[in-house]
Amino acid sequence: MSESSTASRPTLEAVAARAGVSRATASRVVNGGDGVREPLVERVRRAVEELGYVPNQAARSLVTRRHDAVAVVIAEPETRVFADPFFALQLRGISKELTAHDSQLVLLLTEGRDDHARVGRYLAGGHVDGALVFSLHLDDPLPELIHGAGVPTVFGGRPGWGDGTRSAASPVYVDSDNRGGAREAVRHLAALGRTRIAHITGALDQTSAVDRLDGFRDVMVDADPRLIAEGDFTPAGGERAMRQLLDGCPDLDGVFAANDLMASGALRVLRERGLRVPDDVALIGFDDMLPVAEQTDPSLTTVRQDIEEMGRLMARLLLRGLSAGAATVGSAGAGSQEGLVGAPSSVVLPTTLVRRASA
Amino acid sequence: MSESSTASRPTLEAVAARAGVSRATASRVVNGGDGVREPLVERVRRAVEELGYVPNQAARSLVTRRHDAVAVVIAEPETRVFADPFFALQLRGISKELTAHDSQLVLLLTEGRDDHARVGRYLAGGHVDGALVFSLHLDDPLPELIHGAGVPTVFGGRPGWGDGTRSAASPVYVDSDNRGGAREAVRHLAALGRTRIAHITGALDQTSAVDRLDGFRDVMVDADPRLIAEGDFTPAGGERAMRQLLDGCPDLDGVFAANDLMASGALRVLRERGLRVPDDVALIGFDDMLPVAEQTDPSLTTVRQDIEEMGRLMARLLLRGLSAGAATVGSAGAGSQEGLVGAPSSVVLPTTLVRRASA
Repeated sequence: MSESSTASRPTLEAVAARAGVSRATASRVVNGGDGVREPLVERVRRAVEELGYVPNQAARSLVTRRHDAVAVVIAEPETRVFADPFFALQLRGISKELTAHDSQLVLLLTEGRDDHARVGRYLAGGHVDGALVFSLHLDDPLPELIHGAGVPTVFGGRPGWGDGTRSAASPVYVDSDNRGGAREAVRHLAALGRTRIAHITGALDQTSAVDRLDGFRDVMVDADPRLIAEGDFTPAGGERAMRQLLDGCPDLDGVFAANDLMASGALRVLRERGLRVPDDVALIGFDDMLPVAEQTDPSLTTVRQDIEEMGRLMARLLLRGLSAGAATVGSAGAGSQEGLVGAPSSVVLPTTLVRRASA
Repeated sequence: MSESSTASRPTLEAVAARAGVSRATASRVVNGGDGVREPLVERVRRAVEELGYVPNQAARSLVTRRHDAVAVVIAEPETRVFADPFFALQLRGISKELTAHDSQLVLLLTEGRDDHARVGRYLAGGHVDGALVFSLHLDDPLPELIHGAGVPTVFGGRPGWGDGTRSAASPVYVDSDNRGGAREAVRHLAALGRTRIAHITGALDQTSAVDRLDGFRDVMVDADPRLIAEGDFTPAGGERAMRQLLDGCPDLDGVFAANDLMASGALRVLRERGLRVPDDVALIGFDDMLPVAEQTDPSLTTVRQDIEEMGRLMARLLLRGLSAGAATVGSAGAGSQEGLVGAPSSVVLPTTLVRRASA
């Protein structure tokens, strides 16, 4: 362990002694309270500086209820978090925004869903001002745990509940126009003259995947069920789904994959089967994940969503909600419903079709 | 924000009322204190369960000083953390070990060194039981801040200080035998008959890079200074260093790069200059980072260190130290010097040369 020691860490008592004030006065100054005369405030501040005093946040947070820290929870195993560049991009946006507000990004990693109860305990434990939660799956206990923890939260992607078992208040989220983007992709394939258009879905326990499937069905009304194969947003899942589609419908001439990673997997299978892209099969992804979408051969036509901007917006909505709450209800704001007063509502960002070589 | 509310979160008062005991008694039971008669303990426990009470960790931690959470600090910008698979591997080992002990992995991400003061504040704030810190650079204020925070810490890689300005107590760290591994790599190149052997160093403000350079010099005593080029552990840094080496010494016939990512960059430059590997130039990396080392063409001979195991060991040493401390000094153990009593000392893991096609 480090050479840390309690002796090296000055106490509030030491600060009070050096400033020549009572412990209560020193505490009020350190915790930003009012009612202390300016000369005393000045003396305490000088003592804090001279001693290098760091207030114990656990104690201070009982008074101020602010930690200057925001938790990020990605409801995926840590292996997935580091394998899928989507999460790195979203974290980049979040990190930039939190850093600009001097709030610490606290990423809570897990091995899997079994660990979500522990995440709930940490969130309930008074260590953060709020939480940013993304990649939720429908049967995940996390939203319930977050609800129980009483932490202001902004979700990345529209949460999937709506069955009336939870509070009537709506969750705040940032999402892309998944359904509209999917429609545009499929319409583009149709405009290219493709008639046997298939869809590789994402994990269907996530609203983003369901919405993209709905967008596909909006255009391909009464699509042959063999033209829809369930993937899981990973390259391996894209390969599996592409094999299944080709086995069921060897005459397909267009594929819309619900993300770029699955499209890259599908591309490998198409090449393996000797099919030319886009001549035999036109292919469209979703995300515009760089460098993936640019480095495939042929490069990928895809539905662009601004993932980094989504992260930035999530953080911005949360911070805005926290400070709006603080302004309204004072120091008891964060961590309670009143902390949400004045919080902005959800945001759905538009998508754009980016044309490259694959369709 | 979520539909969270204070109303939905039961208080300790509610637990006490339901159990028919005083608040003080309820508090003692919830915080694991002694001196409460068993029937009362039972009644409080039942009330906790029935109400779904979650103790406020900030309050509880003032009593118990345990958070069941460990911070991980990687002293690199978050962009680097997600771009270099080294960190994902080390985090994987840490995550597995912490999860096995139901301790929450709290990854503190930053945009850069300017944010380390904030990390220090979070560590000092009583949110975690200890910290795992890796990828330290020599002039980083982080060790000083961690020292000030008084958090038990295990370092990944030997910290670079030793100038007497810090406490006499030695930091606990997990490292690989960087110098020995480097010696083995360079000896292997020499045994292949190579006489003009160059070295691409890592970032020389990190001890791992300095140790590997020392290992190189152990074998190549009085090496031509033009045969040493400073890199930074990134593929782009490897490319730059390789260009510099070839410009200064076009006749070089062997290269030891201080990690696989730089070796992959060097390989691209060698190919670009029309040099065959290993025929014209034999090349060795460090890490055995998969899939990088296997997927280069030719595949990479490299010095293997078990990165995931290093992460696991770091977590194990920290947890062992914490529980040894707790056993010795009771609940005041974590966060204080006494928490370190019985803590094991540092570990240096052996390395192995893995022979593939490049040397």
